[in-house]
Amino acid sequence: MQEMLTVALDAMGGDNAPDAILKGAVQALEKKPNIKILLVGNETLLREKCAEYTYDKERMEIVHASEVIDCDEAPVSAIRHKKDSSIVVALQLVKDKKADAFVSAGSTGAVLVGAQMIVGRLRGVRRPPLGVFIPTTKGVSLLVDNGANVDARPEHLLQFARLGSVYYKNAMGVSRPRVAIVNIGLEEEKGNALVKAAYPLLKECPDICFTGSIEAREIPHGGADVIVCEGFTGNVILKLYEGVGGALISEIKKGMMSSLRSKLGALLVKPALKETVKRFDASEYGGAPLLGLNGLVVKTHGSATAKEVCNCLLQCLTFKEQRIHEQFEGLYRQKEETSGEA
Amino acid sequence: MQEMLTVALDAMGGDNAPDAILKGAVQALEKKPNIKILLVGNETLLREKCAEYTYDKERMEIVHASEVIDCDEAPVSAIRHKKDSSIVVALQLVKDKKADAFVSAGSTGAVLVGAQMIVGRLRGVRRPPLGVFIPTTKGVSLLVDNGANVDARPEHLLQFARLGSVYYKNAMGVSRPRVAIVNIGLEEEKGNALVKAAYPLLKECPDICFTGSIEAREIPHGGADVIVCEGFTGNVILKLYEGVGGALISEIKKGMMSSLRSKLGALLVKPALKETVKRFDASEYGGAPLLGLNGLVVKTHGSATAKEVCNCLLQCLTFKEQRIHEQFEGLYRQKEETSGEA
Repeated sequence: MQEMLTVALDAMGGDNAPDAILKGAVQALEKKPNIKILLVGNETLLREKCAEYTYDKERMEIVHASEVIDCDEAPVSAIRHKKDSSIVVALQLVKDKKADAFVSAGSTGAVLVGAQMIVGRLRGVRRPPLGVFIPTTKGVSLLVDNGANVDARPEHLLQFARLGSVYYKNAMGVSRPRVAIVNIGLEEEKGNALVKAAYPLLKECPDICFTGSIEAREIPHGGADVIVCEGFTGNVILKLYEGVGGALISEIKKGMMSSLRSKLGALLVKPALKETVKRFDASEYGGAPLLGLNGLVVKTHGSATAKEVCNCLLQCLTFKEQRIHEQFEGLYRQKEETSGEA
Repeated sequence: MQEMLTVALDAMGGDNAPDAILKGAVQALEKKPNIKILLVGNETLLREKCAEYTYDKERMEIVHASEVIDCDEAPVSAIRHKKDSSIVVALQLVKDKKADAFVSAGSTGAVLVGAQMIVGRLRGVRRPPLGVFIPTTKGVSLLVDNGANVDARPEHLLQFARLGSVYYKNAMGVSRPRVAIVNIGLEEEKGNALVKAAYPLLKECPDICFTGSIEAREIPHGGADVIVCEGFTGNVILKLYEGVGGALISEIKKGMMSSLRSKLGALLVKPALKETVKRFDASEYGGAPLLGLNGLVVKTHGSATAKEVCNCLLQCLTFKEQRIHEQFEGLYRQKEETSGEA
């Protein structure tokens, strides 16, 4: 018998909540028999919405939470004061081991703060990073950190690299993922103060296969498997990926409508073009897990669709099946990082 | 009579030197009657190469320089020791007012260091930034700094914004360019320590039209005219622009070759697609001037083609015709930035 995964799902978070969240949950239940969902949010509303779907009632329960944390609320204060919010209630389920994972499309700040305050960090991990898969011409790469730690220190970047390497290895089945640090040139003396200080730490770390610096130009070409940077740069990379892709596609479509000849051609290339665009869309690859906590917390973006919510739930299954959490624990049990203690 | 512009051109810098450099110079002479070029480099070699072209001999002279600074040389030491390198000789021509501008596709480090050591900074300017035009769906935006100052301070970002605003205004003919700071969210409390500290300085500056933060996603859609960030982030943005664009185009081409139907369509859309790709290619928009020096220094990338070299030379003409340098001087004459004195 397959082991069952229980996910606490924030039914109230995100621009499309609760409809897209609920729809994504139902899709995940249909795809996998070993997922159980605790739908956290306003019970009356959710009961009503659930009535619109047919699903295995044994595998989806509603857990009531009367409050919602908005995106414009100060995260620390919101987590402290809204004890009955969907985010706090769901995180408490993970802390109490009533759920294996938490998935939310709600306030990033509240999820990040709440995850660390309620679920807590693994012993030895100072700054859990967000890791997200981005498409490349060769497959996918893991970008870590993509926004959790905007003023990271060199030893944090080392932790991002180690956690990211374990995650990539297991999620992608690559035994020695190539780890690179985002830099403005390839030579070892290049970079800002942070990168220059982090470079030797990465180079000397025996747990990872460090290949040196990567220039942003090479990221979309699959220049490395695990792309390490602090959260500010990571967030810029993730959002620019989306921005340049979207802008270019819209320009190409506009260009194709410029003459009768190209309009005709556009009709013929449309299916192929659609397929390519889909492959290069970062949202196809699930959400961003916060790596290095005492439990799994996955953040997906505010405008997440049902499909993305479903992908996040399936992603949690990979974490459980591949025992990724246990490997994170092992990483810090075998070797307490003294450099990260400050 | 039109005023003549004299440019010292580094004939030895870049992967395609001296051929692409020379070809670009000849193109610029053909396009504009008021450009004069001082071709700086090995005289014997250049004399031989020049013999292959027909051009107005009155407007292109060779200035001998026996040495070349390689890209892997330490910039400060190279500038100090290679006194007869093309970069040092050309910069000296600008310092001595024998040339109005210097254009190079050579070592970025050496050009940046040499420009500040030899040509010098305008009084009041602490850290001259590199400004580069990037294509957007609405036209072009100026990205400043794109790599000169990787560990900038808040007051430096204010200078980037002021210099960039004057440059954009004159080069693009926009009276009040919208200035935004690269950030990971739109709210004022978002950002890393640098951005949080720079934000109020930009907000309070009366010389610029500051519109707040810009997320990287909005940059390709023309969300602001002048995009301000420190050089590390700017360099990542510039290179990722190129990388995502290139990767997506190559995937689209591959996708179009996947079936007979799409192959046929590809033939029809090819001209329109080519036009779009060209419009979205950052190299179409000249090089990156170092803003805030006692003279004009324009850096173009190492793999610059003849066309890009030509564009850089024409760009120098805009600087002269629009009296951009005089306006930079005015900016710092009218108001010495005490915040930039540290």
